[in-house]
Amino acid sequence: MIPGFECASWELRWRGLAVDNLHRTESTFALSNGHIGLRGSLDEGEPVGLPGTYLNGFYEAHDLPYAEAGYGYPEAGQTIVNVTDGKIIRLLVDDEPLDMRYGKAHSHQRTLDFRTGVLTRETEWESPTGALVRLRSQRLVSFTQRAVAAIRYEVEPVDRPLQLVVQSDLLANEPIVSESRDPRVAAALRDPLVAEFQHGEGERAVLVHRTRKSELRMAAGMDHEIISPDNLRSGLTVETDLARLTAAVDVGLGERLCVTKYLGYGWSGQRSAPALRAQVEAALAGARQTGWAGLLAEQRRFLDDFWDVADVEIDGDPELQQALRFALFHIVQAGVRGENRAIPGKGLTGPGYDGHAFWDTETFVLPVLTYTVPAAARDALRWRHSTLPKARERAHVLGKKGAAFPWRSINGAECSAYWPAGTAAFHVSADIADAVSRYVAATQDGDFDRNEGTELLVETARLWMSLGHYDPHDGFRIDGVTGPDEYTAVVDNNIYTNVMAQKNLTEAVAACERNPDSAERLGVDADELAAWRHAADEMCVPFDNLLGVHPQSEGFTSHEPWDFAGTPEDNYPLMLNYPYFDLYRKQVVKQADLVLALHLRGDLFTLEQKAADFAYYEARTIRDSSLSAATQAVVAAECGHLDLAFDYLAETALIDLQDLHENVRNGLHMASLAGAWLALVAGFGGMRDHHGELTFAPRLPSALSRASFRMCWRGSRICVEIERDTASYRLVSGDPVRSAHHGEPVEIGPEPVSMAIPPVPEFPTPSPPPGREPRRK
Amino acid sequence: MIPGFECASWELRWRGLAVDNLHRTESTFALSNGHIGLRGSLDEGEPVGLPGTYLNGFYEAHDLPYAEAGYGYPEAGQTIVNVTDGKIIRLLVDDEPLDMRYGKAHSHQRTLDFRTGVLTRETEWESPTGALVRLRSQRLVSFTQRAVAAIRYEVEPVDRPLQLVVQSDLLANEPIVSESRDPRVAAALRDPLVAEFQHGEGERAVLVHRTRKSELRMAAGMDHEIISPDNLRSGLTVETDLARLTAAVDVGLGERLCVTKYLGYGWSGQRSAPALRAQVEAALAGARQTGWAGLLAEQRRFLDDFWDVADVEIDGDPELQQALRFALFHIVQAGVRGENRAIPGKGLTGPGYDGHAFWDTETFVLPVLTYTVPAAARDALRWRHSTLPKARERAHVLGKKGAAFPWRSINGAECSAYWPAGTAAFHVSADIADAVSRYVAATQDGDFDRNEGTELLVETARLWMSLGHYDPHDGFRIDGVTGPDEYTAVVDNNIYTNVMAQKNLTEAVAACERNPDSAERLGVDADELAAWRHAADEMCVPFDNLLGVHPQSEGFTSHEPWDFAGTPEDNYPLMLNYPYFDLYRKQVVKQADLVLALHLRGDLFTLEQKAADFAYYEARTIRDSSLSAATQAVVAAECGHLDLAFDYLAETALIDLQDLHENVRNGLHMASLAGAWLALVAGFGGMRDHHGELTFAPRLPSALSRASFRMCWRGSRICVEIERDTASYRLVSGDPVRSAHHGEPVEIGPEPVSMAIPPVPEFPTPSPPPGREPRRK
Repeated sequence: MIPGFECASWELRWRGLAVDNLHRTESTFALSNGHIGLRGSLDEGEPVGLPGTYLNGFYEAHDLPYAEAGYGYPEAGQTIVNVTDGKIIRLLVDDEPLDMRYGKAHSHQRTLDFRTGVLTRETEWESPTGALVRLRSQRLVSFTQRAVAAIRYEVEPVDRPLQLVVQSDLLANEPIVSESRDPRVAAALRDPLVAEFQHGEGERAVLVHRTRKSELRMAAGMDHEIISPDNLRSGLTVETDLARLTAAVDVGLGERLCVTKYLGYGWSGQRSAPALRAQVEAALAGARQTGWAGLLAEQRRFLDDFWDVADVEIDGDPELQQALRFALFHIVQAGVRGENRAIPGKGLTGPGYDGHAFWDTETFVLPVLTYTVPAAARDALRWRHSTLPKARERAHVLGKKGAAFPWRSINGAECSAYWPAGTAAFHVSADIADAVSRYVAATQDGDFDRNEGTELLVETARLWMSLGHYDPHDGFRIDGVTGPDEYTAVVDNNIYTNVMAQKNLTEAVAACERNPDSAERLGVDADELAAWRHAADEMCVPFDNLLGVHPQSEGFTSHEPWDFAGTPEDNYPLMLNYPYFDLYRKQVVKQADLVLALHLRGDLFTLEQKAADFAYYEARTIRDSSLSAATQAVVAAECGHLDLAFDYLAETALIDLQDLHENVRNGLHMASLAGAWLALVAGFGGMRDHHGELTFAPRLPSALSRASFRMCWRGSRICVEIERDTASYRLVSGDPVRSAHHGEPVEIGPEPVSMAIPPVPEFPTPSPPPGREPRRK
Repeated sequence: MIPGFECASWELRWRGLAVDNLHRTESTFALSNGHIGLRGSLDEGEPVGLPGTYLNGFYEAHDLPYAEAGYGYPEAGQTIVNVTDGKIIRLLVDDEPLDMRYGKAHSHQRTLDFRTGVLTRETEWESPTGALVRLRSQRLVSFTQRAVAAIRYEVEPVDRPLQLVVQSDLLANEPIVSESRDPRVAAALRDPLVAEFQHGEGERAVLVHRTRKSELRMAAGMDHEIISPDNLRSGLTVETDLARLTAAVDVGLGERLCVTKYLGYGWSGQRSAPALRAQVEAALAGARQTGWAGLLAEQRRFLDDFWDVADVEIDGDPELQQALRFALFHIVQAGVRGENRAIPGKGLTGPGYDGHAFWDTETFVLPVLTYTVPAAARDALRWRHSTLPKARERAHVLGKKGAAFPWRSINGAECSAYWPAGTAAFHVSADIADAVSRYVAATQDGDFDRNEGTELLVETARLWMSLGHYDPHDGFRIDGVTGPDEYTAVVDNNIYTNVMAQKNLTEAVAACERNPDSAERLGVDADELAAWRHAADEMCVPFDNLLGVHPQSEGFTSHEPWDFAGTPEDNYPLMLNYPYFDLYRKQVVKQADLVLALHLRGDLFTLEQKAADFAYYEARTIRDSSLSAATQAVVAAECGHLDLAFDYLAETALIDLQDLHENVRNGLHMASLAGAWLALVAGFGGMRDHHGELTFAPRLPSALSRASFRMCWRGSRICVEIERDTASYRLVSGDPVRSAHHGEPVEIGPEPVSMAIPPVPEFPTPSPPPGREPRRK
């Protein structure tokens, strides 16, 4: 763990400042509701690692340069914009600005409480001239009022009366250092906001800006409530890129200054500046009406309900217990109020991946949301549905039918400038279809199924029909695509892609049969259904008879082994030190690919085959991607390698708290954090949802004496508790749930049902490549 | 044929101006000796299609931009520079500038004579004010004096005395319109030359410039001899980017003004401005010493000797006869005085491909030079040898041993910004090795063999050993490479690559055995030789048992067929209208790949297998590349499809005269022109050089009643004459040559030996894809 985090089960606390860790702690302490994201920077703005205020979907566009262009290459990139910063509250103490780099901090701590949803900062600071103040700020981004964030900022003198001046800012075009190697991206992000309107009155101000190229417009507003001694003098100044409320007051011993700052944010690609101003001012009015205490209470109620359906408990590893709740807290932050916008790979915690969303959302994040906050999963899928016109257009440009969803995007248009690991990764569309099927099975949301769901399944099924072909050699082939493993690209019959496409086709058939009116509206006829069924039946799944394992894609198992012994540790991640061409042609796997198929299409493989395949790929998988450990945990657990699974659970859960990939400064790894839940629930809980049935096969690793998790299924909430030799199932609320325990049917009702855990299957435990063992600091 | 070219066997003539065809005729009328290249623009500079003066190897560098960078991507591009233009001679006739767009041309023609090597322009022009002049200019780039070009410019009044003013220029930084889509390339080529030195005296001037980024320096000089009536007034002005000799004279009827302009060029990456100035002034002094008549005589002698060893004759198609000589003339222009510089894909006839050299040079151009002007082939291979340090460094960056030669380059460093069709095309190195083996076998040049040859073979053999690996499935595999067909990339066991690598390995063994001292110097021991032999023996060559053909690469024959019926003619070339990913995954072949293996490694395949493979690939090869038709001609002829072969011969020979690819404005297609010779000599002559033996298998297509060609072999010159039923072989000079005719041994001596031609093998003639039949206008 990064020095400084304290181990506690319901909160994350960092004592002391550690300026050189600010860029990391700003990510871990980021607050978000999926619409607004505020990095956990200090109230006074500086010192700062990487300031960041984000609005989901608000980006700037820039040209994508190609030294050699090609047909169908995306021409415009998108990059999330650091919008108007409303977090800033500066303080002068007897004429000396509070800057933690100067003077002396007698105490300083920041605490993120997973149950209150509030980030608290407590500081006792002595200015260089000896003035001592006690400062406490609380910050929240409201889960219940989507456009609102709020800060309560309290200061008091400790040992003598002081003059305090507070400056509360809205600051646009904050200077940031771009880490982009592309000068065009850096240029697009230098002063990205053009001022359109500004207004201030009393203690309230609004700034409206727009971007230059993407033509999006945003508004940020602030309002204040100040409690202080009577001598307060305050004033508001408004410029194009700055609104500032200044409040000066002499505060005696035993007195305090308390500023409550309400922030409202909104953006639109269509609404005018006056409309956006009105929207933000209305949000501020609502927030003031609710009041600080009301916002706190709503936040707590929301999280109480969330933990009731989502909490996980483990006995035997407090650090991991904290990491699991940290992970779930950030997943709910990233997803809950996205509302028809993407859930980016980093959530709204940093500028990493340019703020883009990837397939990880559907494959890793949405399963968690589907089984905990299903409405958030639905909203994320509605975003995908809203981008169908762009996905259809992309398929058309590529000469394909149906819809081809982008590898990376903010607004739904493909932004990947390297097609072998972007456009060619068509599995994205099957992953979306998989998430649709999972959501519909888990919720029986008929309305979504009839509308967005069936259309998404149909359009992605059409993509597969135009991507694949029947061949006399070996059935329905899907050639020239890239699977999840980005160290192997543009290959034939990637098994993951093929079996996920197969599921996509059969689920599309089922959806059309469930929803004949939708099918008719989408022009699906009996011939098309028959074609989908036939392609699914004939889907090519290559097998290596010599080695007795599935090749990740055709020819993979004939490729040269990677020289792990000759690869120094500093050469990882390999992509920074070896050319793609050499990675592609060798048996080295960046992240679970065939093994991910063993999880998601586990219904296709025997346990023996899974064990053989897992062992083969385990020895070749290096986890240069953060997406891998969770899947390895799940399949390792199924194959009985429980302690290996536990180590992978720890790696995926601690990825950001321990900064295992050394890039947490750019934001948290949402898929990896979601993977922590998957590793626990699908790994040690053995939870599977094949064919719309919910089943479990729990088993504990030796490091834990107990684990329990909660989830929801078709409106019911259940709790599963795993001990060494037994597991018990209990209904928390709703109707009883039909399930299975290690293949035995079980009905989960209000009374706990305890079931014996069968012996662990005995396969030799495989090893990861030398030097690539699971990581934990 | 483009309207305007007249059919004649020893010259190319264009009557009339046709401004909108200037960009084309400037390419076809380009003069070069492999060191200097002058596009065939009009003396007076305008109207002009695309001005161009090139020095082989003189380029500017520019950054290569990547929206997504990757390890090992080349960072700098290179682009040939339009250097100081010395061709320009402007004329004022009674105060009116001669501009062919104004006034009236009573007659105008340009003629390129393949025997004199002189481009002649004859014009009778009436100015808008009625002044009539007769103008004749002759231009040559000397084959014998490498740094020298010369122009003789003669004007006379036709019907009344006239005042004539001639301005003879050296013009640097001529404005050109860049066709590059990359703004960085366009920027690098805007005013690419920085003036360093200029000097003029009498009728002689020199300008020295350098490039900004590549740090190359060049000098251009001019000197003049003027014959005119006595009243001539002349003066020289010299500026940084312009030197101009102005000569004004009143010319009576029956008198004339005759200006002889000598041009000297030189460049260097190391020599100083004074040194370059001296070099150019020395070249001018030499040229004046030789004089215009002397230069003409040397040019003629050189070409007489060339045609003695290289001429081809056909009876039955005068247009094609002309095209064949045109092709040979440009090949000798491109290659003869390159002297340790590359032979670019366009020669020095235009800015196409940025002036880069590719593998086409070794595979198509060098065979022609090897058998006609072997010293030029040697020099081109010496250039490759001189770039070995860069090729070793590239291999090292890629994690490989030996030398990896670049896909495209001017100075030997890789400039390809798209690795799947660049770096991955490792066959480049085997193609170079093949050219080395061919040159050594054809010349027995022991000095080259011991030094450059063996080192090139050894270092490329080492590359293959580190690229390939033994696999329990199927022997020595070379995975993840791109073969000649650029519509299929990054594949396993591309047969062309594998069998060329196999030859590379066995030729490296043979060279080391021939030259044990060289082998020792290069650190080759017995183990290494054994490893090369073993890899060659175990080389994987996949075969499709179901279809009975060789897959171009593994899996190729299982890919989806291309929908030719659904591909409109306007959609060719496909790469401009379909994404790479879709081209790569389907059975569509841009250019001969497996079929090229059938030619170059014909020793590995039975005739029956060649016929089966040829038929399979013929139906899938669309010739979006100009490199394909020649190879198809060669293999079609071998399989007995003689008329199809003839059509491909015509396509490859006429590619530039008929502008079949609609891009001759950017320069001629040297490999395609060389392919015309290959189609005739290796196609209808059946010439092969497997295992260092020279053999023939002549046969005529129905369109021709006779064909003959000449070539040299180990210092001897021979002539092969093909008629319908017999072929005759005759020694032109040198020692008798041992050869074979359709498998029967034949000794070629001074007396013609006539041999009967056996019956044509009977295989059904395959068809190219619909709409992609051989082209000829």
